[in-house]
Amino acid sequence: MDNMTPIEVLTSHQNPKIKQIIKLRDKRARDKTKKFLIEGFRELSRAIHFGYPIESVFFSREHFLGVNEEALLEKCGKTAMLYELPDYLFEKISYRDRPDGLLAIAPIIGETLSSFEKKVLSSAKDEPLLLLIAESIEKPGNLGSILRSSDAAGVHGVILTDKKTDVFNPNVVRASIGTLFSVPILECSSSDAFSFLEKHKVKLVATTPHTDSLFTEVDLKGPIAIAMGTEQLGLSDEILKRSEIKVKIPMFGIADSLNVAASATLAIYEAVRQRGLAL
Amino acid sequence: MDNMTPIEVLTSHQNPKIKQIIKLRDKRARDKTKKFLIEGFRELSRAIHFGYPIESVFFSREHFLGVNEEALLEKCGKTAMLYELPDYLFEKISYRDRPDGLLAIAPIIGETLSSFEKKVLSSAKDEPLLLLIAESIEKPGNLGSILRSSDAAGVHGVILTDKKTDVFNPNVVRASIGTLFSVPILECSSSDAFSFLEKHKVKLVATTPHTDSLFTEVDLKGPIAIAMGTEQLGLSDEILKRSEIKVKIPMFGIADSLNVAASATLAIYEAVRQRGLAL
Repeated sequence: MDNMTPIEVLTSHQNPKIKQIIKLRDKRARDKTKKFLIEGFRELSRAIHFGYPIESVFFSREHFLGVNEEALLEKCGKTAMLYELPDYLFEKISYRDRPDGLLAIAPIIGETLSSFEKKVLSSAKDEPLLLLIAESIEKPGNLGSILRSSDAAGVHGVILTDKKTDVFNPNVVRASIGTLFSVPILECSSSDAFSFLEKHKVKLVATTPHTDSLFTEVDLKGPIAIAMGTEQLGLSDEILKRSEIKVKIPMFGIADSLNVAASATLAIYEAVRQRGLAL
Repeated sequence: MDNMTPIEVLTSHQNPKIKQIIKLRDKRARDKTKKFLIEGFRELSRAIHFGYPIESVFFSREHFLGVNEEALLEKCGKTAMLYELPDYLFEKISYRDRPDGLLAIAPIIGETLSSFEKKVLSSAKDEPLLLLIAESIEKPGNLGSILRSSDAAGVHGVILTDKKTDVFNPNVVRASIGTLFSVPILECSSSDAFSFLEKHKVKLVATTPHTDSLFTEVDLKGPIAIAMGTEQLGLSDEILKRSEIKVKIPMFGIADSLNVAASATLAIYEAVRQRGLAL
């Protein structure tokens, strides 16, 4: 490994770096220090792939799965500090059941409205915009899964309004399998989101049981933003009132709703189906 | 409340009932005692609605949300023992962040092949069968979410093969929001599952990236069983080899897979869309 910063070896539970990592599981510590954790080979690889800046990487070779971790470390080492840990110490800092020996600290960098806009337009090229608006999602696993599906479906951008879950929560990073680095994400107020939609002539699509229009029978080929609401209560009245298109996912069972990530996935993939995008 | 068993009041952390509840979070205790926990108004209501036997109900009125808990207690009280707990004690036995004051112990009753078959056929009536096979799902939240989507889409039955997660895990109960009581579920070996499919002339549909057929372009209107594999590795070679239909969910992003519950939801709702079922 050339051009790398030297590797420091940590062995003590009392090391301030170790304590800092544990603290960053907590939102207050993330807000205060503007840093967050990226754990896992896949997640860290994606951060690096998308040019996300990494501050320091903690690793334990005993946990490596043998998927080219050394090459990833080499890439990280060009700009980040590297810390080698014995397996027992890595297990202490890991947030996972099955650690794969890689965990990084990175600065929290949110998109501005203009950086988001630029990324969205560049990702859409000449296609009609396909956006997702996630309002007040509470469970990090759901938000992560929504990001993962958005990445897979080629959604051009995700807007988080009235946020209840921090996108830099370790469980969002994990459930998103690192797609939080590939999908442009904007955190903003609902009124800023509405202005963005107006500016780009994007229609707001609300999923709600209170309509007769099945989501598979409504035209979703034009520029749209699909809105998903909180797990408990669904979309706010504000979004429902503002939406130009209302669609329903049919329910044949005893439950009156789907998991929010499942609903989001259905709606965005229906738009993909209708657009007939070639791979 | 007439015809009810008397309500016993529990106040001590040391009460063996309290200890039993805590133990039932653990698979070994569930396997040993053949009992499991049903927490939540919605979940318990669904168990009762589908005639699932309840052994005892623990409740704390301080936590009630005011959604007709008394009527539910009355129904439970006809056959189950009722235990009233002060709020602090209920918080100890609750498995949730926001307890709603209801938690029950129920016997574990799995379907036999013949009881499953009967329920599936009765649920399908004259429609072509729509089944889901979940192979080695590891995360309880994913299994619960798959059951919830299966209920919503009107899947006639779910078959669990090579199981890694116990369907009576508290997190499955929670993520399924009680749909584990509405959807017929069979746990069996993959060869028993295959025999069942053969007997009922059901074609096995595998979701895999290794095909050119998009899931939205393949005929899913006939009797089918959609197979979903483990989070880490996807479907086993056994299922892939055995499947008559292979379909792919298109992926346009950096991630090479969706969350397993998201994939399952897409595939079963695509079958629903093609069948054009009226609500």
